[in-house]
Amino acid sequence: MKGRPMPYVDVDPDFPGIVGLLRFRPETGRPLSELAEVLLRGPHTLTRGERELIAAYVSSLNKCHFCASSHGAFAAAQLPDGMSLVEQVEADPGQAPISRKLRELLKVAAKVQRSGGEVTVGDIASARAAGATDIEIHDTVLIAAAFCMYNRYVDGLATIAPDDPSVYAQQAKQIVANGYMSALAS
Amino acid sequence: MKGRPMPYVDVDPDFPGIVGLLRFRPETGRPLSELAEVLLRGPHTLTRGERELIAAYVSSLNKCHFCASSHGAFAAAQLPDGMSLVEQVEADPGQAPISRKLRELLKVAAKVQRSGGEVTVGDIASARAAGATDIEIHDTVLIAAAFCMYNRYVDGLATIAPDDPSVYAQQAKQIVANGYMSALAS
Repeated sequence: MKGRPMPYVDVDPDFPGIVGLLRFRPETGRPLSELAEVLLRGPHTLTRGERELIAAYVSSLNKCHFCASSHGAFAAAQLPDGMSLVEQVEADPGQAPISRKLRELLKVAAKVQRSGGEVTVGDIASARAAGATDIEIHDTVLIAAAFCMYNRYVDGLATIAPDDPSVYAQQAKQIVANGYMSALAS
Repeated sequence: MKGRPMPYVDVDPDFPGIVGLLRFRPETGRPLSELAEVLLRGPHTLTRGERELIAAYVSSLNKCHFCASSHGAFAAAQLPDGMSLVEQVEADPGQAPISRKLRELLKVAAKVQRSGGEVTVGDIASARAAGATDIEIHDTVLIAAAFCMYNRYVDGLATIAPDDPSVYAQQAKQIVANGYMSALAS
């Protein structure tokens, strides 16, 4: 965090990344946590691991160290192939061992990360041909868009992102067990 | 909307832009509406008009026709100088007749629109020197980040954005009177 030594607002230093912000301003923390809970953990035809993978991938495209590390750890904790798959997807989703449907959804997510206007009729047709439903397409676009928000929020206020991977692995245990609303109260 | 004739998911055509999406998926529509309600209409030292101006400005930078038109109309309806001020801010916030504090906050918002990592210690110091508080800085960053989400959501799913300005002026009456939660149920 060269030249950005401390967060720009007075957050509790015991809570790095977005968690300090959610607690700093609980009025916004609540809907932000609820949105993550519905999108990443609510009832779905995409697994929790697959949805966290979309979140981690978009966060890595936005170069948001805290969110990419967190959601990478949350994806790894809920996918059979763990962190190895997360790293393969972040390096090249075109070559990673994932379903054709998830590959097409990640393509849509990457376009949303740049701009909503980049998503074409053809991108959506390819996702549908690979089996994606309306809700899967909707939620992929919204997960990608939401992480363009969370990433900017976390980095725009210069929150601290620990380097130690064990911090994120520990956080993953809590999120997998208790969900996103638990971050507000812990 | 060349080459993007209809929305990518099956939204009600009577509800253009984000409103159709909020109703298509109320599980996410609720926290998305609550976030807008708190950020743009909750108790604050920035007026509702000033906060809508930040939202409209970021939406215009993201070239999101629906959101820039909507929030431009909502800002105009709640600012003494109306649409003329919105147009001046969108053309050049450095020359628009606004307070020094709002000018500095719009500079921060423009950086967040590009990337969270662009906001510097100096940007925050300038905003504070112009009188901005922690909450005003926090909420400016989050409004800018949130509109990087709403804009991508609306355009990534190719929702319809009416050209007729009277549609947005009519919408402004409803939002000013009833707030963002009313969009879910109307």
